Amino acid sequence: MTASDLLDLDTPSLLLDEQRMERNIRRLQSHLSVLRVPLRPHLKTAKSIEIAQRLMRDPSGPATVSTLQEAEAFADAGVRDLLYAVGIAPGKLPRVVALRRRGVDLSVILDSLDQARAVAAACSEHRMRIPVLIEIDSDGHRAGVQPGDPLLIEVGRVLHEGGADLRGVMTHAGGSYGSRNAAELENAAEQERAAVMRCAEELRAAGLPAPVVSVGSTPTAHFARRLDGVTEVRAGVFVFMDLVMAGIGVCSVDDIAISVLAAVIGHRPDKNQLLVDAGWMALSRDRGTASQAVDWGYGRVCDIAGRPIGELMVSQANQEHGIIESREPGSPVPALPIGTRVRILPNHACATAAQHLGYVVLRDGAPVARWPRIPSGW
Amino acid sequence: MTASDLLDLDTPSLLLDEQRMERNIRRLQSHLSVLRVPLRPHLKTAKSIEIAQRLMRDPSGPATVSTLQEAEAFADAGVRDLLYAVGIAPGKLPRVVALRRRGVDLSVILDSLDQARAVAAACSEHRMRIPVLIEIDSDGHRAGVQPGDPLLIEVGRVLHEGGADLRGVMTHAGGSYGSRNAAELENAAEQERAAVMRCAEELRAAGLPAPVVSVGSTPTAHFARRLDGVTEVRAGVFVFMDLVMAGIGVCSVDDIAISVLAAVIGHRPDKNQLLVDAGWMALSRDRGTASQAVDWGYGRVCDIAGRPIGELMVSQANQEHGIIESREPGSPVPALPIGTRVRILPNHACATAAQHLGYVVLRDGAPVARWPRIPSGW
Repeated sequence: MTASDLLDLDTPSLLLDEQRMERNIRRLQSHLSVLRVPLRPHLKTAKSIEIAQRLMRDPSGPATVSTLQEAEAFADAGVRDLLYAVGIAPGKLPRVVALRRRGVDLSVILDSLDQARAVAAACSEHRMRIPVLIEIDSDGHRAGVQPGDPLLIEVGRVLHEGGADLRGVMTHAGGSYGSRNAAELENAAEQERAAVMRCAEELRAAGLPAPVVSVGSTPTAHFARRLDGVTEVRAGVFVFMDLVMAGIGVCSVDDIAISVLAAVIGHRPDKNQLLVDAGWMALSRDRGTASQAVDWGYGRVCDIAGRPIGELMVSQANQEHGIIESREPGSPVPALPIGTRVRILPNHACATAAQHLGYVVLRDGAPVARWPRIPSGW
Repeated sequence: MTASDLLDLDTPSLLLDEQRMERNIRRLQSHLSVLRVPLRPHLKTAKSIEIAQRLMRDPSGPATVSTLQEAEAFADAGVRDLLYAVGIAPGKLPRVVALRRRGVDLSVILDSLDQARAVAAACSEHRMRIPVLIEIDSDGHRAGVQPGDPLLIEVGRVLHEGGADLRGVMTHAGGSYGSRNAAELENAAEQERAAVMRCAEELRAAGLPAPVVSVGSTPTAHFARRLDGVTEVRAGVFVFMDLVMAGIGVCSVDDIAISVLAAVIGHRPDKNQLLVDAGWMALSRDRGTASQAVDWGYGRVCDIAGRPIGELMVSQANQEHGIIESREPGSPVPALPIGTRVRILPNHACATAAQHLGYVVLRDGAPVARWPRIPSGW
């Protein structure tokens, strides 16, 4: 680390407040330890070996990934228990087989007979019991077999009789991102648990194995009041938190651990605007707060110490330009001098972090290390 | 290149149709050669040495960049004439000086007295005449001195008398992206030209140098009917084109040279949806067509040969999931089998390409090469 001060860093840079991150990790770990369910952290948010080591209970895992490229990179770093939590495309099975041959206990997920048949064919071809969780649709969010659909047992039978290692069920309560208060979050968590428990019981009643019952989303993980029957919880964004999570009440703004350091490069007093050198390339195009009660544009603007400056936000973003305005129309924007450094909190931590090659790690507000992200790609 | 067929490529992958790209390049070059103005292509869209070589009239340039990291990477590849077209942050001047010491004729832009004074101070400190263009606001889009504002001459004098190499003026008609027809595009081009010409003449009338008059945006570059007095045109997205450009009539859908190859990983007949393994990580979060007459969500869906499939679009995107629906509510979505490969055309080529490490180059529809992108970062 060459820079000893935020004023020496190139702009834009992605900053990571290590103490906030550690607090976020401890908070979820302690909540889940009370509920007596282990965490299988999702590594897609951070995509960093250093951060994965702080998230996992053991250097070998368990953990969750969103691409096989992540699985390969974390396997290279010694992680041995991985769930690839995107419905398997049959064309990806050779890479799954190769990872398992390397000694990585990699599981896949699926929700259709066609996928189950493709996995069974791969098990037969490669003489390997590929572990599978059947994806359950607990809230109409995206993918998964719906509870009560006889397809569940059909898929289970194709897998079990076809030589796969049917491990059970998983779901992701993505709909919980639309919650507006603690009661809705608690309900979303219980709905998630109930849907996947019902499906596990249906599989067992049909004589099929279902040792694993996996749930997960950052909002439901924090607001679950009971997780009876659940064997693991997955969550990713909690490590950094973001404005979307603050908007639904999962965290406060002071919990957000990443920000984009930027410099003021222009003034438009006629428009009550400032320009900074962080556009969508540094912030991402994510507009996650657009559908929330408080819309922060492309991010909330803080001073160099990380304290919000009034209601300032990045209202518009071009590739390398951000336009700063106040969220309150007519409220004056301070004429921060050219070169002033600001920090921009992200709407969506996964998307903003993905725009950067690595993290500048801050401790007590000062840069102490650089942690690379694993390269993007699939 | 190992894959000889699109069916052998990993999904998602970024595909580049080389023949469409070459046609796009020839089209703009031939339009500008009729108008007798050279192109200074913007390399921020492609960020590729191989593509830069096809865009520039000479391996040494000229070209435009959006970050100093691009400038350094293209300098390493032999480009010697570069414009860094984002208002200069004073903290970046040491890197500008270092690039110029390496023999790169790098110019910067600015629109304020504070920036001009910072450049003059750097010129004095490093005994170097840093070349500068004053940015002009031709359409209220973003940055720049407004025509008629006495600030123009004040900034010009600070630079000229402070030891900088005042080269003239530049503008970017970003507002042209809101045009809806050829007449509006022609008007935007003439407005861009007129604003910057007026400012060049004001500088000259004040006894200040202004040899360079630089304009540029893909829409105005294609629709300019005359460019009298303009000395160079900058444009970037034209190399690939995209749905936003098609939506404002700058190109047709058949001109779009990049697409994201994806595989079907799920069916939701109850919702008239398909799932693919390309989410915002592969497509970007850009929603550029949202404000146009025809909104393509996160991209238009084509078959593996690149032919649009009805009105299919990616309606929602999670990190590694895309949800495909028809743009016409109620119109049935074909039940493409699991594993079927589709190609997704981007809203915004710059944003989608930025999500990938490189291009799979297609000639006559078959993969023939891989071209890396220069690493992201600043």
